[in-house]
Amino acid sequence: MSDVYAARRSRLLERCVTGGSEAALVTGPANVRYLAGGAPPGSVLLVGPGHDLLLCTVDPFADHSAGTGPAGRPAEDLRVQLLPSAEGDPAVAAAERAAGAGVETLAVEEHHLTVARHRAMRSVAPRLHLEDLGPAVEQQRIVKDGEEIAALRIAAEIADQALGELLESILVGRTERHLALELERRLVDHGAGGAAFPTSVGTGPHSGLAGHVPTDRRVEEGDFLSVCLGADYRGYHSEIARTFVIGTSPAEWQIELYDQVFAAQRAGREALAPGTPYREVDRAARRVLEAAGHGERVGPSIGHGVGLENGEDPRLAPSAMGKLDACVPVTVDPGVHLPGRGGVRIDDTLVVRPEADGGPELLTITTKELLAL
Amino acid sequence: MSDVYAARRSRLLERCVTGGSEAALVTGPANVRYLAGGAPPGSVLLVGPGHDLLLCTVDPFADHSAGTGPAGRPAEDLRVQLLPSAEGDPAVAAAERAAGAGVETLAVEEHHLTVARHRAMRSVAPRLHLEDLGPAVEQQRIVKDGEEIAALRIAAEIADQALGELLESILVGRTERHLALELERRLVDHGAGGAAFPTSVGTGPHSGLAGHVPTDRRVEEGDFLSVCLGADYRGYHSEIARTFVIGTSPAEWQIELYDQVFAAQRAGREALAPGTPYREVDRAARRVLEAAGHGERVGPSIGHGVGLENGEDPRLAPSAMGKLDACVPVTVDPGVHLPGRGGVRIDDTLVVRPEADGGPELLTITTKELLAL
Repeated sequence: MSDVYAARRSRLLERCVTGGSEAALVTGPANVRYLAGGAPPGSVLLVGPGHDLLLCTVDPFADHSAGTGPAGRPAEDLRVQLLPSAEGDPAVAAAERAAGAGVETLAVEEHHLTVARHRAMRSVAPRLHLEDLGPAVEQQRIVKDGEEIAALRIAAEIADQALGELLESILVGRTERHLALELERRLVDHGAGGAAFPTSVGTGPHSGLAGHVPTDRRVEEGDFLSVCLGADYRGYHSEIARTFVIGTSPAEWQIELYDQVFAAQRAGREALAPGTPYREVDRAARRVLEAAGHGERVGPSIGHGVGLENGEDPRLAPSAMGKLDACVPVTVDPGVHLPGRGGVRIDDTLVVRPEADGGPELLTITTKELLAL
Repeated sequence: MSDVYAARRSRLLERCVTGGSEAALVTGPANVRYLAGGAPPGSVLLVGPGHDLLLCTVDPFADHSAGTGPAGRPAEDLRVQLLPSAEGDPAVAAAERAAGAGVETLAVEEHHLTVARHRAMRSVAPRLHLEDLGPAVEQQRIVKDGEEIAALRIAAEIADQALGELLESILVGRTERHLALELERRLVDHGAGGAAFPTSVGTGPHSGLAGHVPTDRRVEEGDFLSVCLGADYRGYHSEIARTFVIGTSPAEWQIELYDQVFAAQRAGREALAPGTPYREVDRAARRVLEAAGHGERVGPSIGHGVGLENGEDPRLAPSAMGKLDACVPVTVDPGVHLPGRGGVRIDDTLVVRPEADGGPELLTITTKELLAL
């Protein structure tokens, strides 16, 4: 595995050199993890010149640190410098070191680095020219390799298992908060490092809301129940949402709304192919909901990339620029919420594949039929 | 309550005006919440000129948003501008608005704002001069008012309850992960919005480690078991750690180590008084552990402020500058870990009070006797 990280770093360095920088300082936590294999809290990665160096204030190999936890363990061949925490900011130490090694131009992640840290770096290394690396690492992360997709498959399977078990239990009378906590416990039971993001459970009027924070409302007969969860497996994050109806006979409006969101989600899934513009995927799903009169109720995007972060590039949104590639895992997650009544959200994690390989690979396989529980 | 937030904002604005800025842009999430009453994800607060304005991309009053969740609800009298999420960064919109209102100098939180956002603000408002506000809001937050201390008292009580219930259950054979999840469920059962930070449970060789990420190791006879948890109640975060011994008879070394850490923690608690330099509190606790030969094993600080964030100002550390005030809630949390054997951590949340008021108020009241479970 060490080779993988070294290859990622040399690809980044090549890009920097082309852009006129001899080295890059990576400070975004997921970016550090992607390139180093592990990222203890607060660590930064200096890529080039010569040996790459991970600078930390927490020992990534100590048994109490993030090394054995969800933050991962740095690649064996990577040099690690442990700074006494009193010595301050690893980014500043990295700037000093780069300047000392004769670097003239250092590329930094201006979208992660605060103004105060940037200034502190300039003040310890006044002759070092700081350039913007931009989202170069985020872009490198979009297309996943086999190991990454394997981790996402397991993360998706864990979420499917947790959800499946919940559906077998009695739901009426239980609160959103407790259902969410139980799902998170089950994720861990099935081998997740933790929840990929706070589990959302919405009942009745709260159903179908994106990012709904669970409350003490209890599940009642006749409710829609929508659940959105994901597992973190080796740092990789799956995402799934399903909506159910509680009781034996869904109301007319529930069946109709479910069918509309389902049709939109299917259209989005079917649009996933290498070469398809991001916004075409959004268009495919959004069009269905607009035709049903829900245009105003659809969120700003209908999906996003998943990987080491929960909502990473690409965004599947009307204004997004770019095209899908093979081996890009994304969500397709449209939802509609009718104020005061509730709503439907259906969300899958899929990997974009060429048609010759059978089209998009569905990772979250829980049924999308409207189940009455 | 609205008055409280308005008073906090006008105090900040006064400070800005003294420093030569006519307005301040607050972007640190806990700072926004402190001044606005609620901070939906990504929201920013423009304080002055004229009416203060909260700029959000998520509606803080919609029932699905953070408004009803742990992020709180903005004060009623505060003006709120909801930006379409496609319109981009609320900080950039705030810069445009400030420039449009005739502001010449805007104070910004350079320790929160990224270089990229700062540049985007300058590019939409090239004549607006951006000054550094520094940690002005963080400093304002150090001394708490009665409402804040009341919330912390409840947060501490909830953590005490969760911990007390765990101690009544069978522990041997259960994993660190499951104990941590159970504690977090109990926090919510007792009314917490959630855990204040990831609950840490360490058994045997993992005991006594600060921030240990729970593993699948099971509790065994003869183990030390150390637990660190906290509740989030209305945004305010308590913190408590206790260490127990599993089985009927602690070993000699366990009793000795426990006594040493307990003595250090007591010395730290007893040093809490208005006017005491932060580093004297650290010194008082650290001295005891140094005398016991554990100097190298003590962490970089022996306590920190608590409030809307978990580790906020002040830091009780050797190099910290400043003195305690009355009504400052802090932790006193020394610990010692012996590699391969385990260790002890004892942590309380207390509020600094003058001697005339009976000295420091202990919020986390779970016993600190060495319990054999």
